Amino acid sequence: MLWGGRFSKNLDPDALSFSSSLSFDINFAAEDIEGSIAHAEMLGKTGIIPEADSQLITDGLNKISKEIHEQSWKPDAEKFEDIHSAIEARLYELIGETAGKLHTGRSRNDQVSTDLRLWVKKRCGNIISLLHEVQKTFLELAEDNINTIIPGYTHLQRAQPVSFAHHLLAYIEMFERDKQRFSIIKKLSDESPLGSGALAGSTLPLDRNFTAARLGFKNPSGNSLDAVSDRDFILDFLNACSIGMIHLSRLSEEIIIWSSTEWKFLKLSDEFSTGSSLMPQKKNPDMAELIRGKTGRVLGNYISLSTTIKGLPLSYNRDLQEDKEPLFDSFNTYFNSLDIMRGMIGTVHVNKDRFIKDLAGDFSLATDAADWLVLKGIPFRKAHEIIGSIVKYLEDQDRNLSDVSLAELKKFNPVFDETAMDCFNIHTALFRKKTLGSPNPDFVKERINYWKQKQE
Amino acid sequence: MLWGGRFSKNLDPDALSFSSSLSFDINFAAEDIEGSIAHAEMLGKTGIIPEADSQLITDGLNKISKEIHEQSWKPDAEKFEDIHSAIEARLYELIGETAGKLHTGRSRNDQVSTDLRLWVKKRCGNIISLLHEVQKTFLELAEDNINTIIPGYTHLQRAQPVSFAHHLLAYIEMFERDKQRFSIIKKLSDESPLGSGALAGSTLPLDRNFTAARLGFKNPSGNSLDAVSDRDFILDFLNACSIGMIHLSRLSEEIIIWSSTEWKFLKLSDEFSTGSSLMPQKKNPDMAELIRGKTGRVLGNYISLSTTIKGLPLSYNRDLQEDKEPLFDSFNTYFNSLDIMRGMIGTVHVNKDRFIKDLAGDFSLATDAADWLVLKGIPFRKAHEIIGSIVKYLEDQDRNLSDVSLAELKKFNPVFDETAMDCFNIHTALFRKKTLGSPNPDFVKERINYWKQKQE
Amino acid sequence: MLWGGRFSKNLDPDALSFSSSLSFDINFAAEDIEGSIAHAEMLGKTGIIPEADSQLITDGLNKISKEIHEQSWKPDAEKFEDIHSAIEARLYELIGETAGKLHTGRSRNDQVSTDLRLWVKKRCGNIISLLHEVQKTFLELAEDNINTIIPGYTHLQRAQPVSFAHHLLAYIEMFERDKQRFSIIKKLSDESPLGSGALAGSTLPLDRNFTAARLGFKNPSGNSLDAVSDRDFILDFLNACSIGMIHLSRLSEEIIIWSSTEWKFLKLSDEFSTGSSLMPQKKNPDMAELIRGKTGRVLGNYISLSTTIKGLPLSYNRDLQEDKEPLFDSFNTYFNSLDIMRGMIGTVHVNKDRFIKDLAGDFSLATDAADWLVLKGIPFRKAHEIIGSIVKYLEDQDRNLSDVSLAELKKFNPVFDETAMDCFNIHTALFRKKTLGSPNPDFVKERINYWKQKQE
Amino acid sequence: MLWGGRFSKNLDPDALSFSSSLSFDINFAAEDIEGSIAHAEMLGKTGIIPEADSQLITDGLNKISKEIHEQSWKPDAEKFEDIHSAIEARLYELIGETAGKLHTGRSRNDQVSTDLRLWVKKRCGNIISLLHEVQKTFLELAEDNINTIIPGYTHLQRAQPVSFAHHLLAYIEMFERDKQRFSIIKKLSDESPLGSGALAGSTLPLDRNFTAARLGFKNPSGNSLDAVSDRDFILDFLNACSIGMIHLSRLSEEIIIWSSTEWKFLKLSDEFSTGSSLMPQKKNPDMAELIRGKTGRVLGNYISLSTTIKGLPLSYNRDLQEDKEPLFDSFNTYFNSLDIMRGMIGTVHVNKDRFIKDLAGDFSLATDAADWLVLKGIPFRKAHEIIGSIVKYLEDQDRNLSDVSLAELKKFNPVFDETAMDCFNIHTALFRKKTLGSPNPDFVKERINYWKQKQE
Repeated sequence: MLWGGRFSKNLDPDALSFSSSLSFDINFAAEDIEGSIAHAEMLGKTGIIPEADSQLITDGLNKISKEIHEQSWKPDAEKFEDIHSAIEARLYELIGETAGKLHTGRSRNDQVSTDLRLWVKKRCGNIISLLHEVQKTFLELAEDNINTIIPGYTHLQRAQPVSFAHHLLAYIEMFERDKQRFSIIKKLSDESPLGSGALAGSTLPLDRNFTAARLGFKNPSGNSLDAVSDRDFILDFLNACSIGMIHLSRLSEEIIIWSSTEWKFLKLSDEFSTGSSLMPQKKNPDMAELIRGKTGRVLGNYISLSTTIKGLPLSYNRDLQEDKEPLFDSFNTYFNSLDIMRGMIGTVHVNKDRFIKDLAGDFSLATDAADWLVLKGIPFRKAHEIIGSIVKYLEDQDRNLSDVSLAELKKFNPVFDETAMDCFNIHTALFRKKTLGSPNPDFVKERINYWKQKQE
Repeated sequence: MLWGGRFSKNLDPDALSFSSSLSFDINFAAEDIEGSIAHAEMLGKTGIIPEADSQLITDGLNKISKEIHEQSWKPDAEKFEDIHSAIEARLYELIGETAGKLHTGRSRNDQVSTDLRLWVKKRCGNIISLLHEVQKTFLELAEDNINTIIPGYTHLQRAQPVSFAHHLLAYIEMFERDKQRFSIIKKLSDESPLGSGALAGSTLPLDRNFTAARLGFKNPSGNSLDAVSDRDFILDFLNACSIGMIHLSRLSEEIIIWSSTEWKFLKLSDEFSTGSSLMPQKKNPDMAELIRGKTGRVLGNYISLSTTIKGLPLSYNRDLQEDKEPLFDSFNTYFNSLDIMRGMIGTVHVNKDRFIKDLAGDFSLATDAADWLVLKGIPFRKAHEIIGSIVKYLEDQDRNLSDVSLAELKKFNPVFDETAMDCFNIHTALFRKKTLGSPNPDFVKERINYWKQKQE
Repeated sequence: MLWGGRFSKNLDPDALSFSSSLSFDINFAAEDIEGSIAHAEMLGKTGIIPEADSQLITDGLNKISKEIHEQSWKPDAEKFEDIHSAIEARLYELIGETAGKLHTGRSRNDQVSTDLRLWVKKRCGNIISLLHEVQKTFLELAEDNINTIIPGYTHLQRAQPVSFAHHLLAYIEMFERDKQRFSIIKKLSDESPLGSGALAGSTLPLDRNFTAARLGFKNPSGNSLDAVSDRDFILDFLNACSIGMIHLSRLSEEIIIWSSTEWKFLKLSDEFSTGSSLMPQKKNPDMAELIRGKTGRVLGNYISLSTTIKGLPLSYNRDLQEDKEPLFDSFNTYFNSLDIMRGMIGTVHVNKDRFIKDLAGDFSLATDAADWLVLKGIPFRKAHEIIGSIVKYLEDQDRNLSDVSLAELKKFNPVFDETAMDCFNIHTALFRKKTLGSPNPDFVKERINYWKQKQE
Repeated sequence: MLWGGRFSKNLDPDALSFSSSLSFDINFAAEDIEGSIAHAEMLGKTGIIPEADSQLITDGLNKISKEIHEQSWKPDAEKFEDIHSAIEARLYELIGETAGKLHTGRSRNDQVSTDLRLWVKKRCGNIISLLHEVQKTFLELAEDNINTIIPGYTHLQRAQPVSFAHHLLAYIEMFERDKQRFSIIKKLSDESPLGSGALAGSTLPLDRNFTAARLGFKNPSGNSLDAVSDRDFILDFLNACSIGMIHLSRLSEEIIIWSSTEWKFLKLSDEFSTGSSLMPQKKNPDMAELIRGKTGRVLGNYISLSTTIKGLPLSYNRDLQEDKEPLFDSFNTYFNSLDIMRGMIGTVHVNKDRFIKDLAGDFSLATDAADWLVLKGIPFRKAHEIIGSIVKYLEDQDRNLSDVSLAELKKFNPVFDETAMDCFNIHTALFRKKTLGSPNPDFVKERINYWKQKQE
């Protein structure tokens, strides 16, 4: 116990177990030791404790670090309320009374805040690297599908043809924004709270610049009260995980739809599909469903912490202990979901010709015909109406655009000529696109090259 | 693996670990076995499998149940995707090939839905019992504080005096509503999905009435598609936990405020307080803070599941696996918070005389004076204005109501007489209350008796 | 202004507009007047004010009620902070100084709590009636589709055939639970807070039983502190709206999928579809998308209020003013969504034969074949494996179950005989179902009749 | 109606009103016209429509802009489904058939996405400016309270003394992070979707670089599918508003506590306080309560949109219409809350001497005494224990640190000497702090200067 001098009774055992954070804060044992080493070095360097004591402490901490790594020591969940107490107790076992000097001028409040920032900065890096890998997998699939024509949808109705590569590139844009978001958070977390004490700094001459630099922080934080109670960087991290999951969730929805018998566009590999305990024929896109489902969980974590912090007076309140589980859970869920998505996309089978016959002469080329009329000088709103009437006329007869004759078109408007019929050719349709960012295969190739260069 | 005949490759190991639910669905191992036993008995009774096989299976299941209870068998998290697979595999080890008959006419979809309902019904019962105990603890404290006068607050400003007993009774009302809510959910969960198969029932003559009765359900559910995809009862349970936590959170906020040096009304026992690693003098209401903080988590669980279910087509989708962790976590968090609150309230020290001097002649008796004017025939709106002006007049001179003389009062309105001064006596103030549900000690005693009788 | 005697400066105009609730609490003007009339009658009846004054007040209130109804009077949003002040001011204009007697022994705290409960009780009734109508529309469509065979899905993969009627009946179950939920909330809101004052009742002899009865409440509430700060019934209402929206959202997702070119199962009527400003051919299921989208909003409302209440000390705090907008918005959104869904389903065109050819001999009958093997004494787990291998064998050759010969089957297991082939007949498949709640057309008819009788 | 050629029946009137967005998207009428003008100029410049038509259209749009500004034209909510249709219809009235050329090569999908980004960028700017003003107000109050000593709290227990200036500076740090967050979002929104069409670009030679530059965007967006379906920037904006509200909510909680009779530290001005309709003496911190309460609403908005987007396939789905109300509401709520907070803090009365007597010799100086022991070579953990025992010893006798004699201290440890007594002097306590970011008045002044320079 790190306190107790003023107490006459022990903490109720149920209360200890209710309040213990050891089961989850063991997740940042590495960061905790890293922070303690920097603190101990500073105590020695400034002469607050003798250099020899400082050395003894850092040696002990390095040993514990190794023990944890080798799993030769594990803190006892029944005895300690948190990882900090557990490590300090272990330090006592290893180096004796000198261990009691480690916590000089430090509170668990600035300590835990430092640990969290170190942890978040590292995890941002991990996520950015994985997103990089995911983009690579998507780029490979895109490169292989520049000419795979599929219907582009709005409202899940066929709207206009695009290529599968173009569709995949949309997700690469999202992943890029995700990378940006995490690299911003890395910067926003880059201040060292160490030396802020419980809330009001210290009367000891702690060198905050030293510990900040030693731990790789840009600078010490500017206000001790804020330093121990600020959790903005965690909320930003949870927001970023949530948006990242929403991207994966949208793709998962598509994978599920594309894998249906009705769509028959994608076939997931056996390694990323599961079966049914009852129905022998089933092959289910469970991984995509789980990713979609876990989005709720990551969103829930954002709410948990926001609700918890809302309305708390300064500075530290124990409510803030509830910051860790949502943080760890959101990271794990998002990171693993990204990884599974990479595996799924990397092994998927694409039914490339699925839509060719469907789209030949399909109404999804109607907009191009309206554009054609515009270039003949007809106001767009009128062109839209003319083509709308042609669609209705054909649909009522169960026909489509490839069936229509020029003579019929002329009945709707005399301006139609032979070149109008080109609009209905699915094989040349994408090449007729003129705008940047469109599915024109020339633009798509260019964009793929852009991303490939960025990847290097 | 409960499936695989149609697959040529195994599930990717990361995908298995990503999708495994064993780490948490082990929580309803007891309910799973209970459901399996009922199913096996029914299979025997209807002749779908031989009676002897049915007996063999139920014996095996009872053995596993015992093994789990005695912790002599623990499923291997690396090998199984869920508790159902793990138990079936263990059954094979115990009774051989006959184990393969258990899953006849059953899917994990109806199985898990049955397990969840059994679990929820039991937990509702647990919570109701604990709430009963909590009410008892509050009643005892209330009985001891019928004459403990405290300021009642609105906007955290002293409004009108009440008694601490009256304040505690407000929470007993809340706990009663919580009990009601859980007993309603118990009823809403009381339908047996077993026999609904994966989604479409079965061509086997399963006796759904038998299994429903055997498991203590009121009746079998009415539609197989709905039965496997309905999670309403879990959302209702999560809502109830969330409202329950909000009640505890409000009380926690009060306990924290009351324990401040400024308020000095409550003193928590050492068993339910903690200290500081840095500041030797601290004694903190951490338990109350944790309860308040964990409210965010339970609310987050509601969001998680709601977001997950939203927009899912019928019937079962793997997203629904995400129903279990929020359910288990909300139950544990709420149940433990209730228990800790009981301990805290049961050992608290009340500073009974804290407010007596403060409230003597305090402006919080102003409303009673306005009422006095009303009974003299003055319209309330005018009475309110008169008393308001008196308050301002006294406040500007840093005086309070007990200081005011009749002569002064008469200057504001000639109707004032000696009896008006009675309004400013804090010791009789509560007894002047005339309305049902008010803090009049006579009513409070009555209400305490009402609750005591209800408790029996 | 209903207060001010003790203030020397007016409220800042921005602060007034920030804090005003008139723009939304005008929604319960009717309930507010209803409550005031009951209160005024009671004041007269008990002699707290003269009977004549009571009569004058109730006449005035009835007149305002008529004015609001006829839209001949509208409160000025710039002048009043809430509907209560606006109505009291209007009463002054109509009857003069006597208006000042209305608020005798009453606070806005108990008044608003009473208004809210009256409002919620009424709206529960409105929703239940509409749900009744919605069920009727669904029943009619179901009755017309008892023999419309469609694939039942799990994981959006074809699982086993069901009928469209059976699918619709699943939603009727959900609507029934929604009705239950709202009728429970109606009961849970059925206590009268009137007479609880600001927080501590009154020294005036208010007859709380009289006002409770007069307003149709079961009884007066039991504790004055709780009465003014309890918002449980609103959280329960928001939860019920949210679950109701989740049901509609799931159906919307299905309607969107069913309306796709790939599924081609439903065709929405023109009255409930919209087009595109750019693409002339588009016909989009916008109403279903909006309903699905608005689910997020109703869920957000639940969070808003839960977060707002969390951690508030007793009794009334101004934060609670934020209870109204989520309440009104959730009601409106849910009620309108239900109504639009009724219109959409009531005018939909069903492509009844869409799946017949697809499902003939489809693997979705595989489970029935496994059941067949079970009845021949083969353990289910083994039967599952046998059928799984047959599926794989056929799938590898791009064949389906209707193509398989008995000779081929016998290679997998000699027990197969001619009757096994019956399992693969889509036209008789549903009739082979034996379990309650299954899509067997006989059970479906029975269930339709059950609902029809319940509807009367 | 912007569509209809292919429809034979009109939209149901209820469905129109259900789906109309005019009531709220009128909020970005200015941005919509701005975008349309850029688009029309580009159509003329590229020769897609004649220059004269382009001129006619932009003149018409400028006129509508003026009409809206002067409120001489207001769109009819019963006739139009959105602001885009309403403006186009008005353009027809003003310039006739040429109006039909405006929508050439444009869809409402890229149009609305452009409008939203323009709107968000502007609002980020508005918020940053206001935050600047708020910081200024806080700085002024801080400068006036450098020597106002108050207890710093952890767990709402007095922990160590700080100054009120130091406390206010903590909020200035938060506001600075809020400014950073909004300036990041401004950058993240800085891509022009215009020219992405409905989802797939256009066959017309639209110059996307021109419109992007004309509208002040950094560049055109890179993928047409992503451009119309991306709402990340709105989620980031909602997250930033939510975190901003959480900061205000924490401060509100403190203002409410500080204004209580028990704390008596702050007195709000009459302009930012309200009274009670029943209790004549009340003066309530309603503005702070409303801000705290509205935090829930802003958090709810984040959930609404996240839940809505989750699981949507690409590209545009009508669900996305639900992006606007949460966006507008979060901006308004946050912006107004900031403004009210500025007013409240700018007019507050601080009771500067409130805590001086309380803190003299208070246990909150205990940590400094432990530090004193550390500098004498005693390990901190032991020093903590020694001081803890002294606290307990004094507390049991109802004494405090200023009462203790050196002789008594020496009984606990002989190392104590006269200089130890300095630790208990509240007037010099803050000056004894040695760490950066601590409440040492010298550091505080420095930090105030730092912020003042940054403000210029």
